[in-house]
Amino acid sequence: MRSKKYSVILGNLGNTCDRFLSSGYKDTLDKDKMLTQAASIEGVTGIELVGTWDIDEKCVGEMKRKLSDRKLQCSSIIPDMFGQKRWGRGSLSAPDAEIRRQAIVELKSCADMAFELGCDLLNLWPGQDGYDYPLAADYIEERQWLIEGVREVAKYAQPKGVRIALEYKMKEPRTHSYLARACDTLLVAQATGLDNVGVTIDTGHAFLAYENVGEVVALLKMHGDRLFHMHFNDNYTSWDDDMIVGSIHLVDYFEMLYWLERTGFNGWYSIDEYPYREDGYRSIRNSVLFLQRMHALLEKNGMTTVEKLIRQRDPVVTSEFIRENLVAR
Amino acid sequence: MRSKKYSVILGNLGNTCDRFLSSGYKDTLDKDKMLTQAASIEGVTGIELVGTWDIDEKCVGEMKRKLSDRKLQCSSIIPDMFGQKRWGRGSLSAPDAEIRRQAIVELKSCADMAFELGCDLLNLWPGQDGYDYPLAADYIEERQWLIEGVREVAKYAQPKGVRIALEYKMKEPRTHSYLARACDTLLVAQATGLDNVGVTIDTGHAFLAYENVGEVVALLKMHGDRLFHMHFNDNYTSWDDDMIVGSIHLVDYFEMLYWLERTGFNGWYSIDEYPYREDGYRSIRNSVLFLQRMHALLEKNGMTTVEKLIRQRDPVVTSEFIRENLVAR
Amino acid sequence: MRSKKYSVILGNLGNTCDRFLSSGYKDTLDKDKMLTQAASIEGVTGIELVGTWDIDEKCVGEMKRKLSDRKLQCSSIIPDMFGQKRWGRGSLSAPDAEIRRQAIVELKSCADMAFELGCDLLNLWPGQDGYDYPLAADYIEERQWLIEGVREVAKYAQPKGVRIALEYKMKEPRTHSYLARACDTLLVAQATGLDNVGVTIDTGHAFLAYENVGEVVALLKMHGDRLFHMHFNDNYTSWDDDMIVGSIHLVDYFEMLYWLERTGFNGWYSIDEYPYREDGYRSIRNSVLFLQRMHALLEKNGMTTVEKLIRQRDPVVTSEFIRENLVAR
Amino acid sequence: MRSKKYSVILGNLGNTCDRFLSSGYKDTLDKDKMLTQAASIEGVTGIELVGTWDIDEKCVGEMKRKLSDRKLQCSSIIPDMFGQKRWGRGSLSAPDAEIRRQAIVELKSCADMAFELGCDLLNLWPGQDGYDYPLAADYIEERQWLIEGVREVAKYAQPKGVRIALEYKMKEPRTHSYLARACDTLLVAQATGLDNVGVTIDTGHAFLAYENVGEVVALLKMHGDRLFHMHFNDNYTSWDDDMIVGSIHLVDYFEMLYWLERTGFNGWYSIDEYPYREDGYRSIRNSVLFLQRMHALLEKNGMTTVEKLIRQRDPVVTSEFIRENLVAR
Repeated sequence: MRSKKYSVILGNLGNTCDRFLSSGYKDTLDKDKMLTQAASIEGVTGIELVGTWDIDEKCVGEMKRKLSDRKLQCSSIIPDMFGQKRWGRGSLSAPDAEIRRQAIVELKSCADMAFELGCDLLNLWPGQDGYDYPLAADYIEERQWLIEGVREVAKYAQPKGVRIALEYKMKEPRTHSYLARACDTLLVAQATGLDNVGVTIDTGHAFLAYENVGEVVALLKMHGDRLFHMHFNDNYTSWDDDMIVGSIHLVDYFEMLYWLERTGFNGWYSIDEYPYREDGYRSIRNSVLFLQRMHALLEKNGMTTVEKLIRQRDPVVTSEFIRENLVAR
Repeated sequence: MRSKKYSVILGNLGNTCDRFLSSGYKDTLDKDKMLTQAASIEGVTGIELVGTWDIDEKCVGEMKRKLSDRKLQCSSIIPDMFGQKRWGRGSLSAPDAEIRRQAIVELKSCADMAFELGCDLLNLWPGQDGYDYPLAADYIEERQWLIEGVREVAKYAQPKGVRIALEYKMKEPRTHSYLARACDTLLVAQATGLDNVGVTIDTGHAFLAYENVGEVVALLKMHGDRLFHMHFNDNYTSWDDDMIVGSIHLVDYFEMLYWLERTGFNGWYSIDEYPYREDGYRSIRNSVLFLQRMHALLEKNGMTTVEKLIRQRDPVVTSEFIRENLVAR
Repeated sequence: MRSKKYSVILGNLGNTCDRFLSSGYKDTLDKDKMLTQAASIEGVTGIELVGTWDIDEKCVGEMKRKLSDRKLQCSSIIPDMFGQKRWGRGSLSAPDAEIRRQAIVELKSCADMAFELGCDLLNLWPGQDGYDYPLAADYIEERQWLIEGVREVAKYAQPKGVRIALEYKMKEPRTHSYLARACDTLLVAQATGLDNVGVTIDTGHAFLAYENVGEVVALLKMHGDRLFHMHFNDNYTSWDDDMIVGSIHLVDYFEMLYWLERTGFNGWYSIDEYPYREDGYRSIRNSVLFLQRMHALLEKNGMTTVEKLIRQRDPVVTSEFIRENLVAR
Repeated sequence: MRSKKYSVILGNLGNTCDRFLSSGYKDTLDKDKMLTQAASIEGVTGIELVGTWDIDEKCVGEMKRKLSDRKLQCSSIIPDMFGQKRWGRGSLSAPDAEIRRQAIVELKSCADMAFELGCDLLNLWPGQDGYDYPLAADYIEERQWLIEGVREVAKYAQPKGVRIALEYKMKEPRTHSYLARACDTLLVAQATGLDNVGVTIDTGHAFLAYENVGEVVALLKMHGDRLFHMHFNDNYTSWDDDMIVGSIHLVDYFEMLYWLERTGFNGWYSIDEYPYREDGYRSIRNSVLFLQRMHALLEKNGMTTVEKLIRQRDPVVTSEFIRENLVAR
């Protein structure tokens, strides 16, 4: 089995809020300390940075040095298309042409920063692009804007070797997102006509949409090999609870790691959690450790064994496998 | 506005069962009587027939006459890929090659019957094609079989002028179907490389998947104009309850009819219900009447008005519109 | 039919935020202006105030005057048990005894303020009381603390004529709340052994839990007549979207108003929305107007007619009723 | 730790159908063979029998002997209140008084048979008692009938030492059941005023309702100690998939076994699955083996350790516990 690259999102180590407690459940942490904490997690070599929050054009050189000091790579930049008032009604698909223009400017700037940091990936989650009510949006017009915006940014990023991974999520903060599920997102990637546009699977977003991550990995392989990036977290399957990996699910994680390996995924295994009330560092670290345990179990059992298992297509045999190989004695 | 073609599924007028009461909640009705009932519903000119249950190669001539006597068209044939033991582990994607072969034979026979009946549509719902457990299916191998099977059937049907509309549904009878949502189904249609493969939206299946039907209509228009057929029913949004249209939702129906009209849909508006404990005829009839009322309200308000409304993108204005124009005084 | 008292929550007219945009989607509004706006909505005579946010012991006299100037009553005080860091791990059921003590102090203070304002209701939503993960809470110990806390506050409030209405919600901000559904909340109310503890139904919280509000109203009537308060909003049934009333549902609202009338509910019909991106005043106003329209339709059709209808227990007849009497022509 | 009693439902070993394939996915098995298979599963000493399907007044003596021959106890009788046409619109709460009378006759007969078999439990799942549509049922009248019916049966059963365990399930076959969740069912049990009426938790029904089984066990302990029976299966949390235990969830099972032990539950741990396409015997057996493994892990870790863990209330520590003690190395 290929060796794996683990990564975390910097902000996950810091303070987190919700609509009822907007000041956050914890204290704000120093970014340098967060970087040092991230670097100290066993096996973590990558860090995802959120645009504006963690990085902007002024501090990119300094950040480069900080990462280098800690032997960290920038695994992706996550452009902030969700946390500013101006994006409240959408970014690339906003009704206001001036906002759409600003979104493109911002994304190109992120592509520049990625290039400067030696990072080849923008993880684009356009969370505000969608709608909240029926009969209150022009789906064709807005989707068209979205596709055109992604295309323009991807064209700009391509010569810099920067790829765009579109992260989908069915809902939140809008009741309906335009990039909602794996396959509608793939259609947007295809519609750009560019090879450097692909998809990010966030495991929690997939659970929420009743998608089976293993199957989605297979689908993205089959239809153009467009899986660019992975975000890991757990939830109760009806909301993006952003919990520690392995708190609820077990078999699903094992299965998705099998499919990632089988389809030759060689990107980052990155943790994306929201530890509202938990200690950030310890919470993220345990997600990494769980993922590494799953990888170790996959290696121990072997790809051939799992392939044989799934080809038997007998849930009873699978149930024996789970009890014998995934659950403690 | 274009005039509309309304249709019903013959079996919906008869007896219906579930896993607890397999003999059904009602008495079995005579098919001739059901046909006569269907023909008597105001505005209904089409009838969908389920393969094996309603029609086979021996009785196709007789059925043609019966339909003609009642001035009914066959709006589609729904091949029985779900109600026989041999399809229990899948039809076109079954692990057993012999079963896959039988499925293709059956589907080609349905295409022949459609041609003979002057019907240009197979509504293919491969409900048994999917899986129930994690780690118990090879998603790539099985999806590939599915795509190849659809392609072979569609190639056969094309010279006869028969199109294949793939009906998706997230789950049931499997916990996960291969044709699960609009966009993964569209990908299968595209993957066949044939123009006569498209998609059926069943409104209840879409609700269940948290899809907005209006948006799905727009999506299918944008990505290849592949919406071939519509099935209407209502539900509580977390299961395929197959209820009378308009029992729960109102605005969603109005919105989807707008988008169907705007995108130039000119197929059948067909009712697909499961009136477990209700009188079949009266239940189906009321769904038709509700749909016709929605169409009348759309016509009364006008396409331009609705287009203006959705372009305002203000849910408050939409709320006023609903109260003023969709709700009784 | 009884005349109806309509009310709104003051804060709903102001700015609203979420976890991605903590500064809020709109500008912060002046409270006086919000009060004036609330008073200007047709038929609104009550206002709900959130403790700390809208009212504290210093300003209670001033608020009393402001309400009186605008001919508004205080329909309830909603103690802030959710928006302060100290409640982050629970209020009345917090693991820390000192926090539990503080919660009781705060609630008693709210009871005092209610008394001073001539208001007879605390609407207690202990949103932080619950848990997020399996194997990380002692359900018996914590529920016991919750019951004891409610009892102590209710005892204190009883001689002042102030009642405690427990508002339930399945989840958010915790993945699991202790007051999750109507009947577990009723059990807590009963366990206090006090008559002045009852339940608030928030229609959106009920939808989210797959509860039928009409049935819940009936249940609370049957088991001790403990329905004290009503909050109205709409959603897509899988999350507390806090939308304008009537944006999605129609029949459900009509049915619940019937049951409220039939069971003799004479409390407030209060709007509780989160108009993230919408104009607060216009959004709330439209919810009130929709509710009034539903009340007018109930009156027009008559309680006896509806009683006859539901006693027929025939969904087909109900479907005809909806089309004839609830939907526009 | 107390020793545990494991049980299975006889019919689970046989053929199973759904609404699309009413003849069932498998072949019908001989009951004697099924009994022998059940008896052969390691640790299984109890068997649940479905009224009419497995047992009636004529064959009760013979069944007694068959069970005795195989050293099996009858762990419960499950009266058939769901699989006959006459119960299609409800049994104890049916609108037709004659049907209600027949349901009581049937239930009393089941109590007689239980007594004769030396079994002290009726597991009453009134699956047809509920409604499908809004505005089509009189919730108060029907719930009253249900309570009265349960009371009459329980009174009859009490002198025979037979208890009534009410099994709840949110929906299916109705879109809404009257016994929907743990706490509304507890209210019905309390309303009978009899001690021999309690509750059955089916783990899958609880998952479906977003209930945490561990918490429900605690709740039923606190409010009258009314947990009488347990049914085990797994699902994807949005439908009653009735899958092999441990196919999806891990931590939840461990947690619920802890709470069952802590609250002194000494009833049966019974498997209730629907192996549509799987071999019945092997499927049920694996559920039993998984449950036994979870019990072994609980014993190995120790009740005190788990109590300490949950009192720490730190999901990060819980996450370490899961990785160290529940997941394989």
